[in-house]
Amino acid sequence: MRLQSDSAPVNDTLLRAARGRVVSHTPVWMMRQAGRYLPEYRKLREGTTFFETCRNPDLVAEISIQPLERFPLDAVIVFSDILVVPQAMGMEVLMVKGRGPVFPDPLRTTEDLGRLLAPDVEETLGYVFEGLRRTRTGLNGRVPLIGFAGAPWTLMAYMIEGGGSKSFDKARAWLYAQPAAADRLLAAITEVLVEYLDHQVRAGAQFLQVFDSWAGMLGPRAFERFALPHLRVIASELGRRHPDIPLAVFARGAHHALEGLSKAGYDVISIDWTLDPALARQRVGPDITIQGNLDPAVLYGSPKSIREAVGVMLQGFGGERHIANLGHGMLPDHDPEHAAVFVEAVHELSRQA
Amino acid sequence: MRLQSDSAPVNDTLLRAARGRVVSHTPVWMMRQAGRYLPEYRKLREGTTFFETCRNPDLVAEISIQPLERFPLDAVIVFSDILVVPQAMGMEVLMVKGRGPVFPDPLRTTEDLGRLLAPDVEETLGYVFEGLRRTRTGLNGRVPLIGFAGAPWTLMAYMIEGGGSKSFDKARAWLYAQPAAADRLLAAITEVLVEYLDHQVRAGAQFLQVFDSWAGMLGPRAFERFALPHLRVIASELGRRHPDIPLAVFARGAHHALEGLSKAGYDVISIDWTLDPALARQRVGPDITIQGNLDPAVLYGSPKSIREAVGVMLQGFGGERHIANLGHGMLPDHDPEHAAVFVEAVHELSRQA
Repeated sequence: MRLQSDSAPVNDTLLRAARGRVVSHTPVWMMRQAGRYLPEYRKLREGTTFFETCRNPDLVAEISIQPLERFPLDAVIVFSDILVVPQAMGMEVLMVKGRGPVFPDPLRTTEDLGRLLAPDVEETLGYVFEGLRRTRTGLNGRVPLIGFAGAPWTLMAYMIEGGGSKSFDKARAWLYAQPAAADRLLAAITEVLVEYLDHQVRAGAQFLQVFDSWAGMLGPRAFERFALPHLRVIASELGRRHPDIPLAVFARGAHHALEGLSKAGYDVISIDWTLDPALARQRVGPDITIQGNLDPAVLYGSPKSIREAVGVMLQGFGGERHIANLGHGMLPDHDPEHAAVFVEAVHELSRQA
Repeated sequence: MRLQSDSAPVNDTLLRAARGRVVSHTPVWMMRQAGRYLPEYRKLREGTTFFETCRNPDLVAEISIQPLERFPLDAVIVFSDILVVPQAMGMEVLMVKGRGPVFPDPLRTTEDLGRLLAPDVEETLGYVFEGLRRTRTGLNGRVPLIGFAGAPWTLMAYMIEGGGSKSFDKARAWLYAQPAAADRLLAAITEVLVEYLDHQVRAGAQFLQVFDSWAGMLGPRAFERFALPHLRVIASELGRRHPDIPLAVFARGAHHALEGLSKAGYDVISIDWTLDPALARQRVGPDITIQGNLDPAVLYGSPKSIREAVGVMLQGFGGERHIANLGHGMLPDHDPEHAAVFVEAVHELSRQA
């Protein structure tokens, strides 16, 4: 048995692809790969609330590594939630069954900004860092460990809307009715995120992804005005502090933003399934790695149709600077066997190409 | 006083813009312009359920015309709902306060397709046609009357999902797990829609819009495979039967589909606020009218900021073949005074241009 150095995983395909280096196969992982579709996840979660689980570093490590025990994935993402940051800033967030996240007391007026804390991330989010450390130990260098955070606009959207929403109208109202307050809120969140992601790297994260899950609610001008500048700050700050850690951004639904994102300081742009791989490649140019983008609903189809869809996707991306993933997260009623087909198809078909 | 012929409204700016003729100003209307943001609408709805209102032709006419009594709109859209078609096909649909539409018994398996009826539209949807006739009479030729329907994919999405959803996973699952059954369902819906829209024209509709509200849930390949062919059938059938009636399509979120839609037989393509007007114009070419696309959240801002946003939008579209609208519907907490600012700004700024 070979001893692993701390910084070089045995399988560094994800990190190589993120940097545009030669790889033997297209690396693959899945958003929400540790989750409810896995019976072993549901079993481990029994009797604990969602956020209790997030705060238990041993459970975090075990859950994060579960999918790697089933599938030959090229990365593990730490089990956590983007809403731990609003919690650290003093907001209560509950996970309500069948409804998703609920903020009992969302930000309603600009005066509510006074309620927000500028937290010491080590003190308030230390459990995430401990979870990363234990996951990293548990991985023992097998594959790289991904850390993550929600993007400023997405966190703002939740903090104002008070939960999930079809169009986040209350949050979008702030952008037009009180843009200066929106700027203050976004800047405050960004400041926390920079420290949070910095500490994630120090705790063992080897690749970072920023999830702008509700970027698609913004038109091009609003995205450029309220979302992109803060994404740039995050990339430049993290890039300065940790130049060797690849940075990925997933601005879901922001189809118009590919060009802007490709100049925002990220190594990897993750795209959803509404973008054509070949067109996305043209638009971001040759120097960015693209991650994605199979429609998660494809996994409801037969193994044969999954393999076909993977083949079409790989061909679209053309084999260079690609990290295979879904265009959004795994779904609770997905069949784990179909996830296996997806992972294997990516490896097999990309090796043949 | 001039007598109006049945077919030529005094203000035919909408129809002229749809056909690419010269207009004195950019015509404007708003999706969901008859709705909860108007106190007179809320008053009239008191004591009736949503679908009771839809089935009452006198209420339909009064509600449809309400916004025209407030704002110098260039069109009126009949008050109704896209889900009256699934109802006509035998499905129960309730409108539940705070939750939206609910199908107590959605389509779960392909066998459930056997439950669907091929309705006589005159018998099952005659109330819509009567509502159109009374609205047309009430309008007395002031502005054109818009009829509408939901697109096949969007109606399928509701019928399977059983209500609104963030990603319509159950409906998307059909596309991959049982595509042949999806095809059958989509074809059956399309057949009803052709008759339904045909009868709307015979009852007085002078412009038709097909709402593919959940088109954005589909990737480019799925849209081309499951949504576009049926949209084409609708356009060609209606175009054949009523060559003088402009046809509009609003495939919300299907940013990738502009090129395909511009060749699908529609005169007008309605776009949401995530598309840049000038880029949309480039992509659809000069022979299509584009409708849209102010972010409805802009109406939460000040009158000054609304006027500025309208100016930017008009400039983006360039003045030719444009029908001004929002990029989605009016919202219940919008201020009617701000809707007035929007309408007036479109007229005033487009006359100056």
